[in-house]
Amino acid sequence: MSDHHGHHHTEEHLQSSDLLRDVVIGMSDGLTVPFALAAGLSGAVSTSGIIVIAGIAEIAAGGIAMGLGGYLAGKTEQDHYDSELKREYEEVERIPEKEKQEVKDFFESIGLSEELQNKATEEIAKDKKQWVDFMMKFELGLDMPDPKRARNSALNIGVSYIVGGIIPLSPYFFIENSKEALKFSVVATLICLFVFGYFKSKITGVPVLSGALKVMLIGALAAGAAYGVALLFK
Amino acid sequence: MSDHHGHHHTEEHLQSSDLLRDVVIGMSDGLTVPFALAAGLSGAVSTSGIIVIAGIAEIAAGGIAMGLGGYLAGKTEQDHYDSELKREYEEVERIPEKEKQEVKDFFESIGLSEELQNKATEEIAKDKKQWVDFMMKFELGLDMPDPKRARNSALNIGVSYIVGGIIPLSPYFFIENSKEALKFSVVATLICLFVFGYFKSKITGVPVLSGALKVMLIGALAAGAAYGVALLFK
Repeated sequence: MSDHHGHHHTEEHLQSSDLLRDVVIGMSDGLTVPFALAAGLSGAVSTSGIIVIAGIAEIAAGGIAMGLGGYLAGKTEQDHYDSELKREYEEVERIPEKEKQEVKDFFESIGLSEELQNKATEEIAKDKKQWVDFMMKFELGLDMPDPKRARNSALNIGVSYIVGGIIPLSPYFFIENSKEALKFSVVATLICLFVFGYFKSKITGVPVLSGALKVMLIGALAAGAAYGVALLFK
Repeated sequence: MSDHHGHHHTEEHLQSSDLLRDVVIGMSDGLTVPFALAAGLSGAVSTSGIIVIAGIAEIAAGGIAMGLGGYLAGKTEQDHYDSELKREYEEVERIPEKEKQEVKDFFESIGLSEELQNKATEEIAKDKKQWVDFMMKFELGLDMPDPKRARNSALNIGVSYIVGGIIPLSPYFFIENSKEALKFSVVATLICLFVFGYFKSKITGVPVLSGALKVMLIGALAAGAAYGVALLFK
């Protein structure tokens, strides 16, 4: 949700929020799921070869799924906005009294007096574009999407996933014994998850230490569960 | 984003949107990534045993990562809301004129006259709770989060991921030859992705056929890429 009237603290959040959100989504999944997959397979097979292949396949699949998924989510948002915009233009023509009532309801909901509700509604409805923009934002809660956003988002998420996924996998490239490689993977990944969780918490404004520990804990739990079920099905 | 003044079409979107969003996120990733992983491994190994283990490890890891991820995202949203709420209460005490100016700026931005901007601002600022609620919603763009939401979201996403992931993996349980199992997996998964994409598009209000095809295409591309890189690294 965008904000054009913000405090300094809000605006700081805003400038980084889109890219940040993408990198956070991509990296966190990239660090966590390939890590857990490699850990799980380390419980079931003794050599790193197959783990590297599985890990690479997972990173490629995950990067594409998340990247294209992000792209389509952005496209869908745009299409949805466009179709609702068209519908609102039709409605202010076809049922203006109902649409005015909805503007009035909005002003009532924020606490204006009956007199101001009516006056403000008349002013909004004087200009059709202004009226529709108002309905889009405050009746439907839709902000105009950024057209470049879908493309950028896809790229950011996909690349972040791949970068994140290479970290837990890298020890398996160099160490043939999977149990040995796992030790390095666990250490490297948990450190990265902690650092990543720290910055994520810092930027989203939650306590950094507990935030970092939580992100690390998710990774450890996912890896532990994967290790457990892989042993079970071995 | 909530909407308390909506048309019938908006309200329909709303009732299902939270659960739907979770199931869509969980199932789409669950169908796509384990499918692509299994397909990729089918290009590199000839028996299904290791693919089942890798797939199960991935589903467990992904389900936990997405479920816990969803839970923490909900918690973070709640914490962020609470800390911004506290800050707004402090600011209307400490710098009321600046905060009033921001209310006025909002009314200016939607197109009200100078006279109504001032009158409406005075009415909003009469009641401190009403004033802060207004700032939260229209200055910061924050809706009050639903406290049960984080827990439910986690469960919905995690379970949806596991359910989605079992579908592409199931042929490998019964068919020892991985290339044979892959054929059934491809058919079953692409059908599920199409059906899933159809309903997803229907509910999000985009053209259903192209929406369904897009979801299916993502799955196919991810699986193809995974197959390709697994062959390459074999």
